[in-house]
Amino acid sequence: MKYNAIYGQSGGPTSVINASMYGFIKQCLKEKDIDNIYIMHNGINGLINDDIKSIKDIPLSEIEHLPFTPSALAGSLRYKLPLPSKTEDIYQKILLTLKKYNINMLFINGGNDSMDTCYKLSTFFKLVSYDCRVIGIPKTIDNDLVCTDHTPGYASAAKFVITAIQSIYYDNLSYPHGRVNIVEIMGRDSGWLTAASSLANITGCGPDLIYVPEKPFDIDVFLNDVKQIYSKKKRVLVAVSEGIKDSLGNLVFTQKTNDVFNHQQLGGVASHLSFLIEQNLDISTRAIELSLLQRCYSYSASKVDIKEAINCGRKAVIFALKNQSGVMVTIKRVSSSPYKVKYETISLEKIANYTQNLPDIYINKKGNNINDNFIEYCLPLVSKDDLLIFAKKDYF
Amino acid sequence: MKYNAIYGQSGGPTSVINASMYGFIKQCLKEKDIDNIYIMHNGINGLINDDIKSIKDIPLSEIEHLPFTPSALAGSLRYKLPLPSKTEDIYQKILLTLKKYNINMLFINGGNDSMDTCYKLSTFFKLVSYDCRVIGIPKTIDNDLVCTDHTPGYASAAKFVITAIQSIYYDNLSYPHGRVNIVEIMGRDSGWLTAASSLANITGCGPDLIYVPEKPFDIDVFLNDVKQIYSKKKRVLVAVSEGIKDSLGNLVFTQKTNDVFNHQQLGGVASHLSFLIEQNLDISTRAIELSLLQRCYSYSASKVDIKEAINCGRKAVIFALKNQSGVMVTIKRVSSSPYKVKYETISLEKIANYTQNLPDIYINKKGNNINDNFIEYCLPLVSKDDLLIFAKKDYF
Repeated sequence: MKYNAIYGQSGGPTSVINASMYGFIKQCLKEKDIDNIYIMHNGINGLINDDIKSIKDIPLSEIEHLPFTPSALAGSLRYKLPLPSKTEDIYQKILLTLKKYNINMLFINGGNDSMDTCYKLSTFFKLVSYDCRVIGIPKTIDNDLVCTDHTPGYASAAKFVITAIQSIYYDNLSYPHGRVNIVEIMGRDSGWLTAASSLANITGCGPDLIYVPEKPFDIDVFLNDVKQIYSKKKRVLVAVSEGIKDSLGNLVFTQKTNDVFNHQQLGGVASHLSFLIEQNLDISTRAIELSLLQRCYSYSASKVDIKEAINCGRKAVIFALKNQSGVMVTIKRVSSSPYKVKYETISLEKIANYTQNLPDIYINKKGNNINDNFIEYCLPLVSKDDLLIFAKKDYF
Repeated sequence: MKYNAIYGQSGGPTSVINASMYGFIKQCLKEKDIDNIYIMHNGINGLINDDIKSIKDIPLSEIEHLPFTPSALAGSLRYKLPLPSKTEDIYQKILLTLKKYNINMLFINGGNDSMDTCYKLSTFFKLVSYDCRVIGIPKTIDNDLVCTDHTPGYASAAKFVITAIQSIYYDNLSYPHGRVNIVEIMGRDSGWLTAASSLANITGCGPDLIYVPEKPFDIDVFLNDVKQIYSKKKRVLVAVSEGIKDSLGNLVFTQKTNDVFNHQQLGGVASHLSFLIEQNLDISTRAIELSLLQRCYSYSASKVDIKEAINCGRKAVIFALKNQSGVMVTIKRVSSSPYKVKYETISLEKIANYTQNLPDIYINKKGNNINDNFIEYCLPLVSKDDLLIFAKKDYF
C-alpha cells in the first residue's frame, strides 16, 4: 500500500520543533511506501482551509537548515477543536481536504493541547470510518507531557536558562554590593524550566532561591529569605516561574488576560517581586524576563535536544508505517550514565490534556530551591561539555 | 629598570573585559622587566583602601578561564574622582598604596568615565612628581569612545543583539497574525548597539524599524509606521535604544533615577511603546528587554572581540614599557575586507568624557532604520561565519 503523509505544527514554537519537521521529511523521503509528503499551514487551520504545501516545492538545501531554525516554520495555531461529531462543519472541512489529497497519515507536532487535537481527529476518523493514521510528535519547552521522560524543546530552553543564569550570576559579582537579580522564567503550571536554573550550580553559579508553581509562594517568607542571604552575601540571585501561586492557588501576579484555552497570560511577576523588595528591604534590584529567547534562541540549542527532536520526527513515520495510530511518540530513558534513550508510543488518550508537574522529589523541603536529584535528571539533556567554565571569583 | 604593574576594572562589565585582564597578565608574565603584577579590587577603590591582589596568588589554570568569563572579575566601581589636588585626601591614600607596593605602571580598563579617572590620576602623578605610567585599556558595550574604530565589549554585545533579533524575528513568524515585538536595547546616548540589530538583515530577518537616541523620536510618526507595516506584513519587529528622546531632547520614557555620574537610569521604553500601540492601534504586542544578557552572555561572545580584548591588554603593557603614559590603547582599522586592525595610542585628554555617537551616515533619512554602510562597518567585528542560516519561511 502507498501512503500520503501530512505534518503540522501546533502550540507555542520551540528552538527545535523544525528539527522534528526535518526528521519527519527525511524519513518520509527514505520510505518507498510513502508517495506524497505535505505540510499543513498553521496546524489544523491548514486542513480546515485547504492550505497545504507539498514538500516537492521546497528546495532540499532549505530543508537542511531546519534543525537549526527556531519558530514554528510550518505555521502554528492555538485553536481548540470542538468535540468530534459527524455533523460538525469544521470536521467535514478537514475531511474534505484529507480526501482531496488522499492523505492517510497525519502527524501533529505539539504539546498537550495539540495532543487533544490529535485525539479528537483520531476519534472522528473512527466515527466516520476514514482510514487515516494519526501520530502525535511531542514538543514543548514546558516539559509537562505525561508518559515521556522529557519532551523535545525542553532541553534547549533549559540550556538557555542555565547559561543565562550563569551569566547573570557573574554579572552581579562586578560590584562590591550586588543587587537582588530576579529572573523570570516561563512556566504557567509546572516548574521544569525554572528548575533547570539549578544546573548553574554545577559551575558554582546557581540561584540562591528558586520558586516553582508547584509550591505555594509566601511573600513574607520570601522577603525574609532575601534579607538573610543579602546580609551575608551582598547579592542575591532568584529564579522564579511566571506562574507562582500563593497558598490559595492564586497567581502572585497576573495581568489578567486569557488565551483561547482559557489560560491566563502571565509575565511581570519578577518586576512585582522586585518592587516589593525595594519597598520593604531598601535593596537595589533588577527584574529580568528571559522572555521569548527561552523558546527561540537556537544559538544555545542543546545538541541532544536537536538530535532527539529529529528522531521523534523520524520515529513517528516509522511507527505509522508499522500500523500504529492514535498514539504519541515518547522518549524513554534507558540510562542516565551513559545517557541512553529509546523511542516508544503511548495512546493519545493517556496524554491529551494531562500535565506532568515537577515532582516533589526534585524540590527542597522549604520549597525555595531545587535539589541534586533534579541535576542528575536534567544534566544529560543539555550536555555538560557544552557549558562554559568561568574563572572563579574567589581567586581574583 | 624593573617595574611593578597594577591593573583595575571600572564601569559596567562586558563579556570580554576579563579577556583584557588575561592579555595584561600574560604579557606581564612574559616581560623580564616586570617584577610584580597586581590587581586592584573594585577599580580605584582598591588603591584608596589598599585592597590589592598579587597575581602570584592566582592559579594559572584559573587565569586561562578569563577570556570566556563575563563580569568584571577584579571588581568594578562607579566613582567619580575629584579634581587632582595635592591636598585631596583620596589622592594621598592612592599614593600611599602605590608607594607601599612600589607600583610604577598603572592600567585601568574601562569606558569614558574610567578614562576620566585615568586622566586625573595621570595629572596628579605629574603634580606630585610620582613616577608612574598610566595607560587606559578601552572597554564598553556602548562603543561610544572617540578616536578608536570600536571598543572591546561592543562586538560581543552586538552579536548577542543580532542573534537575539534573528531568533525573535523567527519566533514571530509562527502564527498567521504576528505581534508587534519591541526589543529594547542598551544605549543611553548612542545607538551603536541598537544599530547592530540591522545586521540580522544579512540573513533576511532584521527589524522593520530601528530607533536610536541620535534621532528625535516622534510618537505619532512611530504609530503610523507600525500601522502601515502591520497592515502589509501582519507582524512588525522594532528595535529601540533605551535612551530615545523626543525633539526637545527629553527621554521618551524614564523611571527618573540617577546614578553617581548623574546619568539617568533607563529601561522600560519598550513596555511604554507597547502600551501605546495596544491603546491606539489595537494590535497585540510584546515588549522584550534584552537586559543584562547583552553585556554578559559570553556564550555568544564574538571571537574577534575576545581576540582584540586580549590584544588591548597585551598592547597596553607593551606601550607602557615603551615609555608611553597618559594614553589609552586604540584600535585602528587598516582594512575591512580582509578585516585587519592595528593598535595605537591616544592622549587620555582627548578621550576622557567625550562620546562618539552613531554618525548620520549610518542612519536612514527618515531616522527609523539603519543603512548598509553600517553593516559594512560592523559585520567584520562579529564574524559572519558565526551567524546561523535559518531556513526561509517563504519556502515552507
